[in-house]
Amino acid sequence: MECQLTITRTEQKKEKPASDKLGFGVHFTDHMFTMDYTEGKGWHDPQIVAYSPLTLDPAAMVFHYGQAVFEGLKAYRNQEGKVRLFRPDQNFKRMNRSLERMSMPLIDEEFMVEALKQLVAVDKEWIPTESGQSLYIRPFVIATEPCFGVRASHTYKLVIVLSPVGAYYAGGMQPVKIYVENNYVRAVRGGTGNAKVAGNYAGGLKAQVEAKEKGYEQVLWLDGVENKYIEEVGSMNVFFKVKGEVWTPALNGSILEGITRDSTIQLLKDWGIPVVEKRISMEDLHTAYVNGELEEAFGTGTAAVISPVGDLNWNGHQMIINGEKTGELTTRLYDTMTGIQYGEREDKFGWSVEVTE
Amino acid sequence: MECQLTITRTEQKKEKPASDKLGFGVHFTDHMFTMDYTEGKGWHDPQIVAYSPLTLDPAAMVFHYGQAVFEGLKAYRNQEGKVRLFRPDQNFKRMNRSLERMSMPLIDEEFMVEALKQLVAVDKEWIPTESGQSLYIRPFVIATEPCFGVRASHTYKLVIVLSPVGAYYAGGMQPVKIYVENNYVRAVRGGTGNAKVAGNYAGGLKAQVEAKEKGYEQVLWLDGVENKYIEEVGSMNVFFKVKGEVWTPALNGSILEGITRDSTIQLLKDWGIPVVEKRISMEDLHTAYVNGELEEAFGTGTAAVISPVGDLNWNGHQMIINGEKTGELTTRLYDTMTGIQYGEREDKFGWSVEVTE
Repeated sequence: MECQLTITRTEQKKEKPASDKLGFGVHFTDHMFTMDYTEGKGWHDPQIVAYSPLTLDPAAMVFHYGQAVFEGLKAYRNQEGKVRLFRPDQNFKRMNRSLERMSMPLIDEEFMVEALKQLVAVDKEWIPTESGQSLYIRPFVIATEPCFGVRASHTYKLVIVLSPVGAYYAGGMQPVKIYVENNYVRAVRGGTGNAKVAGNYAGGLKAQVEAKEKGYEQVLWLDGVENKYIEEVGSMNVFFKVKGEVWTPALNGSILEGITRDSTIQLLKDWGIPVVEKRISMEDLHTAYVNGELEEAFGTGTAAVISPVGDLNWNGHQMIINGEKTGELTTRLYDTMTGIQYGEREDKFGWSVEVTE
Repeated sequence: MECQLTITRTEQKKEKPASDKLGFGVHFTDHMFTMDYTEGKGWHDPQIVAYSPLTLDPAAMVFHYGQAVFEGLKAYRNQEGKVRLFRPDQNFKRMNRSLERMSMPLIDEEFMVEALKQLVAVDKEWIPTESGQSLYIRPFVIATEPCFGVRASHTYKLVIVLSPVGAYYAGGMQPVKIYVENNYVRAVRGGTGNAKVAGNYAGGLKAQVEAKEKGYEQVLWLDGVENKYIEEVGSMNVFFKVKGEVWTPALNGSILEGITRDSTIQLLKDWGIPVVEKRISMEDLHTAYVNGELEEAFGTGTAAVISPVGDLNWNGHQMIINGEKTGELTTRLYDTMTGIQYGEREDKFGWSVEVTE
């Protein structure tokens, strides 16, 4: 790879949004990172440039055959102005797994972490500093060759854009109401469920819209083969505390391998709390609920970090979890994880990576 | 909808490719059709303009969450210069089904057929006229809103581009070798398999690459639940002639509802040949083969129209069909279908739609 990163700072800086008007993923910073791939030449021309539109041929393959993978992570700035990333190496490692699944060219993970650090440093002033706020980071790769043959593209573009985001729980942590989806399927073994690819998300929107119409905020996805086993919740991994033990669906090829999921498992083990990664049927979960053994439920993901589940509807069986209040373990995980992310708690695993200029 | 179509002809006409150098989907004409959608306003500003790049925000949702649907059809120009489309109404009807599945806004099918006719008329001179050549038409819709929230976009763009394409069987009809895929899955019931969406194609590339490495040109997809039942072949529907009867997989929600598939079924019925749409297991097909009852096999799709299958490899069982020669029925279907498309045969179903200026 030609990995000499060039930086061209923009002179037309944008006005930053008010810190109480950030929202999620609607404001973008002054710069972005781009890098191109050409078959036979490899990845080339890595650069940090002004945030600007992408100009693509209407026949570019990303519009037609969906070769598009992405990642999501955050940069955190604490009161002292120190900027940290959370396990960025894991994101680029997973991006390579996604690229491989979609027949797209692999990237140099170490180089990407370094390039990301430089991009974040350039737009450091964009990182909001109030409690719970952060800079959302979106690396993505798209197929750019203009061609209608159904085959892998010969050219690609990798882009990283940054978006200052508000606190996910601006009004305090609120347990969400989840509808267990019986009709639509997110992914199936042999498919693309464990890759972070664009198509997985568009396919899930309809179930989400229908769940909202029924008064639920998210769906819980069941497996595509038997429609019995729990996979994910919305776009998060999911955990259940049952009789002091924590259950989470085992990675089976159709579940996304969440980095917050992995961090949660490591923390729980470190605390001596038994974690069981296994196939979990809705029936078993419901039995635990009926027996009064389902103590807490929560989702894990980059945007919310930890998201308590207060209400599960499975075929009309309503399961109210922990009186629709955020559980003790859920709170402890959230506080610990965000504490590490902002550099306010001990980081014994070395997850937090400081960005220096 | 604001459906006053404006036409702005380009003055910078491109050089047309040599008729023996067309290929598939690599050359594009002078003009394209575009139309925008804004929530609250609907579809607006339909226009025919010079073929030109799309300029999109890097946060445009199509790059991240895969809301992208497309269609494929062809325009044919015969020796007298008459231009015809083949069942274009069916493409826009299916596009609406795809849009609905992906939580995207529906289009006015009749208006789209009219707009397409005008676009084809404007670039009429681009339609190659040698035997088997045609103008491939690619309508597609993409999500354009710059936002990272996982929800349906509020803005979209519909584009139609045109590409002169060479004869699919430049060297005569060649039966293809197909590998029956046991590992990867294209789609599952409850997923997006029956919608023509970008993500379905990217997910299938890896199996195709691996099949090529094994010496096969395409894969035959099995169902995602039991890995037993035949779904599609490559990006075509599939048919088998068994003891004088024609079998094809029934539409089950995970198979694309092909327009050439439908036309093939109608022709066969018209000819008094029994057609059975049913669940077909590989085991049953293999039994028919072993008993000497599997007489012909072929795929159906817009690009190839009818594509004979000469060799099927299922778990190491090699099935040579009709001595790897194109079968009689396969040839009859191809000749009839293309005859109707070019206006050279009687069109009793009214499939062929003439484009007049």
